[in-house]
Amino acid sequence: MSITINKDTRLCMSLSGRPGNFGTRFHNYLYEQLGLNYIYKAFTTEDIGAAVGGVRALGIRGCAVSMPFKEACIDYLDELDPSAKAIDSVNTIVNTEGHLKAYNTDYIAVSRLLASHAVPTDSVFALRGSGGMAKAVAYALRDAGFKQGFIVARNERAGLQLAQGCGYEWMADTRDLRVDMVVNVTPIGMAGGPEADDLAFQQDLVGTAHTVFDVVAIPSETPLIKLGRQLHKRVITGAEVIAIQALEQFVLYTGVRPEPELVERAAAFARS
Amino acid sequence: MSITINKDTRLCMSLSGRPGNFGTRFHNYLYEQLGLNYIYKAFTTEDIGAAVGGVRALGIRGCAVSMPFKEACIDYLDELDPSAKAIDSVNTIVNTEGHLKAYNTDYIAVSRLLASHAVPTDSVFALRGSGGMAKAVAYALRDAGFKQGFIVARNERAGLQLAQGCGYEWMADTRDLRVDMVVNVTPIGMAGGPEADDLAFQQDLVGTAHTVFDVVAIPSETPLIKLGRQLHKRVITGAEVIAIQALEQFVLYTGVRPEPELVERAAAFARS
Repeated sequence: MSITINKDTRLCMSLSGRPGNFGTRFHNYLYEQLGLNYIYKAFTTEDIGAAVGGVRALGIRGCAVSMPFKEACIDYLDELDPSAKAIDSVNTIVNTEGHLKAYNTDYIAVSRLLASHAVPTDSVFALRGSGGMAKAVAYALRDAGFKQGFIVARNERAGLQLAQGCGYEWMADTRDLRVDMVVNVTPIGMAGGPEADDLAFQQDLVGTAHTVFDVVAIPSETPLIKLGRQLHKRVITGAEVIAIQALEQFVLYTGVRPEPELVERAAAFARS
Repeated sequence: MSITINKDTRLCMSLSGRPGNFGTRFHNYLYEQLGLNYIYKAFTTEDIGAAVGGVRALGIRGCAVSMPFKEACIDYLDELDPSAKAIDSVNTIVNTEGHLKAYNTDYIAVSRLLASHAVPTDSVFALRGSGGMAKAVAYALRDAGFKQGFIVARNERAGLQLAQGCGYEWMADTRDLRVDMVVNVTPIGMAGGPEADDLAFQQDLVGTAHTVFDVVAIPSETPLIKLGRQLHKRVITGAEVIAIQALEQFVLYTGVRPEPELVERAAAFARS
């Protein structure tokens, strides 16, 4: 991957508590392949207000927003797209001549995957998690027409708030549950984490479901996804979520929509 | 010139009213040659306070400051090095974990060139200009021990203020002057400007001087410098100023001082 910079080069970036390499590699790969005069770089900050002010003042074209800034950044923005407004959570800022408009491409990606995988909307689901990404997934489920589901979260306040916000039930754990789809939106199964080798849902619950959805992207073959594949379930992986959400950011920043085959190569390169 | 970006790459940048390519090419060339994980990019802004706040909040390692921000940025900084404090004018900001310290490497570069070219300090000079760069040059002359000089500026308020500040005389024009050194710190002779083909000082004044100093860097062979060479004068060019000031920024940002031969190649590349 090589990039040439001149005075007309546009910068896109990310803001997160712990910057990773996925976005940097995904976007820079596409810029190079498509001959676009852009560069992408990851940042962290201890002052989200000043960081967003800097995005505006420096004319930085786009900014991905991750934990823990997805809600905290909202005060400093000019406009929320419905994808962000519905859930009060932002993962993308687009700067058009100083006007900052925010989107949530996680919500967009999950909505698209529920449709493309043809998950029946009468499926009852159990969603584990209660953070910003869980909110994006839960609202995408609600807006896709899923009527019945359970938000499973140890944190009662956050879990109850999310469940009530989108009309589902809160549960502290999955005992006695029986569902059609399990959805993991926690770090369980994430590489390098303390629960990298753990299953996000117990085996018998997975066994009676028809769909297994895990948003963990690195690795995308989590213990839960592997079990789903073994049991011949419909499987939706975090690799699909991260690629689609990053692609939608790319389109918002550059106005260019790359061919699916190129997007796949960029995502594979970014994960490698 | 090719650069690879990952999550650990550090960003340095410039802020100016009209970004050019010199700094971008100079710094990125050296990063690549030395294998340093840095990138450099030029920015402009309409909100200098928010831009400097963004430098701090995003952990941008270094920021060059050009017209019209050299004085306006001072309110947003934490500390001034003597090179900037002496003249209340900043051209370099170094960010060390959120602490912004400012320098003036133009002042440093001019001081060094007066010494390396062994200009006698009893030389009487005429300096044309009254902007931020003129201030850096005039104070470098004063601090190097030059006792007698004339600040030549059509703008009486700015010219008089600069002259009085460093103990020289103000003159509206060079009529009746006779000096040992002429110093141009105006855009006269600058490529693309309305006075690109003009001489910054009349020929007879240049003829009786022993030293010709022009800070215009693009091109560095201005009509004034060409005349100085024809007349076999001691010549100091803007190419030398810009290379030394950029080198000192590079050292402040990275802690690495490249070999002079490499600096020459970087400067030649940046001007090309």
